[in-house]
Amino acid sequence: MSKVHNFSAGPSILPKEVIDACVEGIQNFSGTGLSVLEVSHRGKEFISVVEETQATLKELMGIPEAYEILFLGGGASLQFLMVAYNLLETKGAYLKTGVWAANAVKEAKYMGNVEVVASSEDKNYSYIPKDYTIPADADYFHCTSNNTIYGSQMQSFPESPVTMVCDMSSDILSRQVDVSKFGLIYAGAQKNMGPAGVTVVIVRKDILGKVSRQIPSMMNYKVHIDKETMFNTPPVFPIFAVLQNLKWVKKVGGVDEMQKRAAARANLLYDEIDNNPLFKGTIAAEDRSQMNACFVLNDESLEEKFNAAWKAAGISGIKGHRSTGGYRASMYNALPIESVEALVNVMRNFNK
Amino acid sequence: MSKVHNFSAGPSILPKEVIDACVEGIQNFSGTGLSVLEVSHRGKEFISVVEETQATLKELMGIPEAYEILFLGGGASLQFLMVAYNLLETKGAYLKTGVWAANAVKEAKYMGNVEVVASSEDKNYSYIPKDYTIPADADYFHCTSNNTIYGSQMQSFPESPVTMVCDMSSDILSRQVDVSKFGLIYAGAQKNMGPAGVTVVIVRKDILGKVSRQIPSMMNYKVHIDKETMFNTPPVFPIFAVLQNLKWVKKVGGVDEMQKRAAARANLLYDEIDNNPLFKGTIAAEDRSQMNACFVLNDESLEEKFNAAWKAAGISGIKGHRSTGGYRASMYNALPIESVEALVNVMRNFNK
Repeated sequence: MSKVHNFSAGPSILPKEVIDACVEGIQNFSGTGLSVLEVSHRGKEFISVVEETQATLKELMGIPEAYEILFLGGGASLQFLMVAYNLLETKGAYLKTGVWAANAVKEAKYMGNVEVVASSEDKNYSYIPKDYTIPADADYFHCTSNNTIYGSQMQSFPESPVTMVCDMSSDILSRQVDVSKFGLIYAGAQKNMGPAGVTVVIVRKDILGKVSRQIPSMMNYKVHIDKETMFNTPPVFPIFAVLQNLKWVKKVGGVDEMQKRAAARANLLYDEIDNNPLFKGTIAAEDRSQMNACFVLNDESLEEKFNAAWKAAGISGIKGHRSTGGYRASMYNALPIESVEALVNVMRNFNK
Repeated sequence: MSKVHNFSAGPSILPKEVIDACVEGIQNFSGTGLSVLEVSHRGKEFISVVEETQATLKELMGIPEAYEILFLGGGASLQFLMVAYNLLETKGAYLKTGVWAANAVKEAKYMGNVEVVASSEDKNYSYIPKDYTIPADADYFHCTSNNTIYGSQMQSFPESPVTMVCDMSSDILSRQVDVSKFGLIYAGAQKNMGPAGVTVVIVRKDILGKVSRQIPSMMNYKVHIDKETMFNTPPVFPIFAVLQNLKWVKKVGGVDEMQKRAAARANLLYDEIDNNPLFKGTIAAEDRSQMNACFVLNDESLEEKFNAAWKAAGISGIKGHRSTGGYRASMYNALPIESVEALVNVMRNFNK
């Protein structure tokens, strides 16, 4: 398996150790003689998985005591709706920096009034807007820390006069973040956290319970918190896999180490994009993502040849999103620098 | 692993072959050299998994062409809400036969008017009501085919004057069902279908689009249908595991064979419950479930001794639900008759 350089945008590469631990859990879970696929979620072995996953995430991200951690099904797209269900009373304020941010806006509108404080849609989401004012009368401000499709990333977060909510699906655990600045953080697991099928929600309890609408149980964060993230059967195996991945992050050095690795990978690739006359980046330099590097060939007629070259080098998953075209190299936590070197070598040789 | 007799109520036992196929997919998925945990859900290999899962389920259940098959996250509990979101305009009619049916009622009330046509709550859900009228002015009639917690099962379905919706989470694929009688069937996978983390929805498209409310995207069956069950990242691995399980069902003889096995297991255990003076069943005989057999000791003071006896025989998961007490032996598709024999032997020896 080591021969494939997996740049998939998500679901995406996982460390070999994590995959091995998943196999072990599927064959014999916690010494039960059963597979993790066939045990009760209310058994003590799985409850201990949930608790350890919460504790490890708390430690890795420095999550303060006032926050609860939930593992929900349905994906980050369900959070677009749940955030508004639980928080939107007068107005939700949104920063529109890409397709997922736009979807968050769209779903919130089903619940009430939404103000888009700034948008980069005018330039095909190729930058992160910076001069905007978050209205003090909004219930919350929602932003997307990293835009997977376009390859832009918020390098810093604003000082928000209202509760800040962030979709960190594609860069969680890749850099230090001050969790205390946020009221709610959510992330689909399938990039830096684990496989698809579970979404992590980190929420400060005191922001809840303030809207007047009746909230259906499955949409209600308080219900999930009261049932210790087991209101109904949770996605057992995806949570188990997230734990294996968090343990790996911790073992290799935590978020600090992930941040160093992300910078090293991104610098290597962006340097090549900037210095190789055949390519150009598509995102404003100061807003470039360390997770997803998007670039195009200056001469589109070379595409076929270039595609053949990276495929021959065992590279997988760098075709751009179907809505943008070009190329996108996703470099999540588990991607070894050797894979980026392989891509850079292909680009260099292609120029020669 | 073969030494544990797994009677878990769900997530529950899976065939050894399915577990082996899951391990293989995690180690090298469809010859990609990658794990099924780290591939794009939009890659051709995974799209073909989704299509094969749909086709195999269609074949196994005899699902007519007019129906669509979706694989959604969030669990059957999310379907309680989605059903009402998509179908409830004037009134939803519900048959209340257990905790899950009651939860379906509760969530539907967030969307509008609900009529409970009959309930067995008066006798702790120990029977299935039979004399009831489904109002012809309801938008739909909702029932629960098998009540996991109490161990009751609808032996037949009523002729409904309105669209019939059924939660088949705990007995799908265990018996022949005429799908054409239903407008919508849903089932959390974690009993007869596969591991936790995905819910199967089988829906006749023409029942949709008739309510006046605006439906948020993730709640909207039509959105999921239009995107071929990939509106957002689906629970990739749980779907993959469901396919392995459907292939196993097909290989061993399909739903007919599952039905025979279920009857053999249930007859063996209920005979012992009825003939052994130490035990008694808790459900009206004609409504007993072939999936979950609930029983109690006539003399509660023997519990500790009996618990020690079945544990010593390698039996796992027969403690009753925390809301009912007593015992519950869940006998899903993958449970070998030998496991039921082991339990029956323990009961017999305990009487001696």
